[in-house]
Amino acid sequence: MLDAKTANQDDYPTRLPRERWLERRDPVVWQEWSEKAPLTREQFDFFDRNGYLILRDLFSAGEVAALREESTRLRSGGGNIPTEDVITEPSSDEVRTIFRLDGHSALFDRLSRDERVAGRVRYLLDDDLYLHQSRLNYKPGFTGKEFYWHSDFETWHAEDGMPRMRAISASILLTDNSALNGPLMLMPGSHRSFVACEGATPENNHATSLKKQEVGVPKPDSLTRLAEEFGIDYASGETGTVILFDCNTMHGSNGNITPFPRSNAFFVYNAWSNRVIAPFAAENPRPAFLSESEPKAPIAIAGGSLA
Amino acid sequence: MLDAKTANQDDYPTRLPRERWLERRDPVVWQEWSEKAPLTREQFDFFDRNGYLILRDLFSAGEVAALREESTRLRSGGGNIPTEDVITEPSSDEVRTIFRLDGHSALFDRLSRDERVAGRVRYLLDDDLYLHQSRLNYKPGFTGKEFYWHSDFETWHAEDGMPRMRAISASILLTDNSALNGPLMLMPGSHRSFVACEGATPENNHATSLKKQEVGVPKPDSLTRLAEEFGIDYASGETGTVILFDCNTMHGSNGNITPFPRSNAFFVYNAWSNRVIAPFAAENPRPAFLSESEPKAPIAIAGGSLA
Repeated sequence: MLDAKTANQDDYPTRLPRERWLERRDPVVWQEWSEKAPLTREQFDFFDRNGYLILRDLFSAGEVAALREESTRLRSGGGNIPTEDVITEPSSDEVRTIFRLDGHSALFDRLSRDERVAGRVRYLLDDDLYLHQSRLNYKPGFTGKEFYWHSDFETWHAEDGMPRMRAISASILLTDNSALNGPLMLMPGSHRSFVACEGATPENNHATSLKKQEVGVPKPDSLTRLAEEFGIDYASGETGTVILFDCNTMHGSNGNITPFPRSNAFFVYNAWSNRVIAPFAAENPRPAFLSESEPKAPIAIAGGSLA
Repeated sequence: MLDAKTANQDDYPTRLPRERWLERRDPVVWQEWSEKAPLTREQFDFFDRNGYLILRDLFSAGEVAALREESTRLRSGGGNIPTEDVITEPSSDEVRTIFRLDGHSALFDRLSRDERVAGRVRYLLDDDLYLHQSRLNYKPGFTGKEFYWHSDFETWHAEDGMPRMRAISASILLTDNSALNGPLMLMPGSHRSFVACEGATPENNHATSLKKQEVGVPKPDSLTRLAEEFGIDYASGETGTVILFDCNTMHGSNGNITPFPRSNAFFVYNAWSNRVIAPFAAENPRPAFLSESEPKAPIAIAGGSLA
């Protein structure tokens, strides 16, 4: 395993005096496509080339309804969730984020292990999986704030100690998401470049970076170059749509003044062999609700209906 | 002419102790469609029904290039424009808005009088026209802020003294505008309801309302009702695309984290017979760069190429 403290062995140095562009040193898909794959050849190649994939109609209407109900229940305090795992609005009690979602809800735990999602991710990563992070996101209408462009891996590597690019996130829409209510925007193909960011990591950075990320983001000129080279796509879809995206795909979302809220369940699947070590560019690792550092065992992928 | 001080004669009372919904008491289109109209029957009906209309490919590539160049020249200080007509970024000298655009540029003056735009508006309003307001808007990439939902007429009536709903705005795109870089969003059909807003007009309200409108906006529940009833459309298009919209169409725009700026020329055409009187719900009228109160003569609509 890599020794985080030996800079020479770090393929992805970041939080540097000056921004640098580096080539990705890891595969995107970790095995060849075969007839047995749970993805079509086209889907598999799309993910490899673009760094994301949108999967529609995976769940039945009944499953979607159950997920909706469960998310409403959790947001209205139905789960007896400890306050440390809940982020509310500064100005009200409205719940914005519930961390460790799989630990607070049997249904969402089951969802995180569902063959239709996790089974596909396992194939792409060719390894057992565990959840590096899991959460429920809720952004109200009218005042939904933007999330600025970033690569998740940049943060997970720098601040959590994730060694390689061998993780995939799944965003499972719990509301309909159109082009206008702040959908996930992605730069297709950006996952093949690593933008090593400028600036040292402040102590306890996650306390503010969850609201507005200041370090670990590429400079405007780099984002312009990425957008001109790769373009910008967005992931719209009905409730139940699943977006898989590579840990290094540049993504963000605009704010939302429409009355339509947006919500999703967010699971970060990391390869079991890629468990975090010491942070590569921070004094201390982030807390466990952001970065699982001691997973007990790989998740047990389950088939059949959710509910 | 209406007497603004006689509340009984005001069909559109607003800035009230409580929000109210009123019916529109004016036509949307002020004459019947005929074969001689500069709009197809379909376009004419679309505008009447939805309160807006998108016109594409009106201008040649050469005209579009000339408009782009002229806007760059004006924004970089080429027009010797008095500072009172220029709004810059708080943190830099970057120009965000140039008011009285037709007064500062022969090309934009010509554009504002172009038969392809103003000729169509004149037909819809069946009257001579003058410019109630005219400006160049520029929103940079990455940090473009949202504009919250509002009806322009609500403000123009309350704060400028525009008597009737007999004005049409034209937004002429000076950059490409996609769903993702904060396009104009409109609620089709919302122009037939007048949301009389809650709250008195603060003194000198325009000084802050240009940045963030606090009074003269419907409440969240009303916007939800409008959006559910009418839906939300958006106006994307290439540079040179023209969006005409009725003065009472509910509209707004999201922020923009993409690297792609957006810019437009914005002309408010008011019917000559509908010239402003005293404000209906404010102590003093807004300044002339926001509300032309003494137009000398109707604009002279011109045919042929712009440049």
